[in-house]
Amino acid sequence: VSIVVRVNGRSVGDGPAISALDHGFLYGYGLFETMRALGGRPFLLDRHLRRLAEGADTIGLPLPAPEAFGDEVGAALTESGLDDAYVRLTVTRGVGAPGPDPSTCSRPTVVVIVKPFPRPPRRWSTEGLRAVFSDIARSDSSLLTGVKCANYLECILAKERARELGADEAIFLGTDGDLAEATAWNLFFVEAGRLCTPGAWGPILPGITRAKVIELADSLRLAWEEGAYPPERLFAADEALLTNSLYGVVPLGAVDGRPVGHTVPGPVTQALDAAYQALLEMHRRGDL
Amino acid sequence: VSIVVRVNGRSVGDGPAISALDHGFLYGYGLFETMRALGGRPFLLDRHLRRLAEGADTIGLPLPAPEAFGDEVGAALTESGLDDAYVRLTVTRGVGAPGPDPSTCSRPTVVVIVKPFPRPPRRWSTEGLRAVFSDIARSDSSLLTGVKCANYLECILAKERARELGADEAIFLGTDGDLAEATAWNLFFVEAGRLCTPGAWGPILPGITRAKVIELADSLRLAWEEGAYPPERLFAADEALLTNSLYGVVPLGAVDGRPVGHTVPGPVTQALDAAYQALLEMHRRGDL
Repeated sequence: VSIVVRVNGRSVGDGPAISALDHGFLYGYGLFETMRALGGRPFLLDRHLRRLAEGADTIGLPLPAPEAFGDEVGAALTESGLDDAYVRLTVTRGVGAPGPDPSTCSRPTVVVIVKPFPRPPRRWSTEGLRAVFSDIARSDSSLLTGVKCANYLECILAKERARELGADEAIFLGTDGDLAEATAWNLFFVEAGRLCTPGAWGPILPGITRAKVIELADSLRLAWEEGAYPPERLFAADEALLTNSLYGVVPLGAVDGRPVGHTVPGPVTQALDAAYQALLEMHRRGDL
Repeated sequence: VSIVVRVNGRSVGDGPAISALDHGFLYGYGLFETMRALGGRPFLLDRHLRRLAEGADTIGLPLPAPEAFGDEVGAALTESGLDDAYVRLTVTRGVGAPGPDPSTCSRPTVVVIVKPFPRPPRRWSTEGLRAVFSDIARSDSSLLTGVKCANYLECILAKERARELGADEAIFLGTDGDLAEATAWNLFFVEAGRLCTPGAWGPILPGITRAKVIELADSLRLAWEEGAYPPERLFAADEALLTNSLYGVVPLGAVDGRPVGHTVPGPVTQALDAAYQALLEMHRRGDL
């Protein structure tokens, strides 16, 4: 099986399964989480479900009991037979009357998509990702900036634009001009041995892997800080890296064609990547 | 028939019709237009299709030929048998691989929803709409602010919040603090006989009815201007009104519990409403 899609507890494949009156479809009223599964189990599922619940609070989305999500994700993974998989969990407001009144929606729509883990290009680990600065600013004022919701078009367009320019990713600045995040990654850089990352109070999505990498930095006795940084700091850094739930820790090699970091991957990136891979391996074996 | 839903040329009702892998569903990668149909024909369809095409340019959405839309909307209206109807036309990027790469999407998904025209509450015309100022700012920097796209959650949430406060609508200010628009309406006010509306260069959706009302103001020899206005100007105005494609011209009666305008509806609102209703009636009779 190349892809498994389950909607409200039923396996549906890639055919029609969502009503055109689902407010997730009509208005983007929904949340999602993307995870990696290893050993047939999603990594850090509890943290993803916690973020989902926080996002649901923010946007007023009623959620089923969290156990239901674990069961559905488990059923999709079992059905796929995949050991190493991409998992996307989506919850929308559900089917309602067309028009901006979500109180007409009966019950949330729960979608789980599982497909084989998409291996990253080998050059990511040797040369690092190539990024560009997006000309779209991450809004400080939107309550949706910190929520992983289906209003995702700015990220899609920024990434498309990066591809057109021959790059892999786009890095957003905030409306204040400071470094924010990439389209589906958080950003870190290293300055004199100190790991720096844009503060979670700013216009970023607080990544699950971002939080885990900060914990790993503590374990490795690496100094770290959250802050507000102008883009020039990236080019002065000793090394830089990106994190997300699918690909873990990946070096950043260049932005707008200018090299970032003295070595790629840098020593801190290598140490964090090794520690993260060790966690993944423990999870795969069921030791975590 | 209470509601007609057509997806890619087939009548599907409110059941499952959209793939969970449609990037409109996964990422909000889609556009829509809401129209009123009278006499079984959508009012100002050509202008709505022009705005759709402009939005498609902005977000890189490939569109079918515009005739296809007219045919589909016509088929849905015929099927509904409705003379006076709400019409929503939605176009998404279509079904693709899960993941932020729209180039995997094969062809756009076209959805037409038709339902009976939802009559507005009678008090709207006698007392005016009650609005509140939203605590969400309309971003000046987002390229999506001026595009009617499926990333619509901020509007939905602002309107929900207004309802909780006992109001009908929410008015957004721009990030600069000036008046912008309501969640699905453009805003006008009258100052010493002069019709004023936030400029289309600002963070607003350039409404089809907004443009038509400006044309009507010219026909009625009313002075008008686009500008940048702080919210206080609204309370100092002689009258204020809101416009959208479904409800036309409606007086604004109060914001945050404070009355707006000396009379509701004011004389300019009444004149514009009467002229707009005359256009609608000509359209209904097929004389336009």
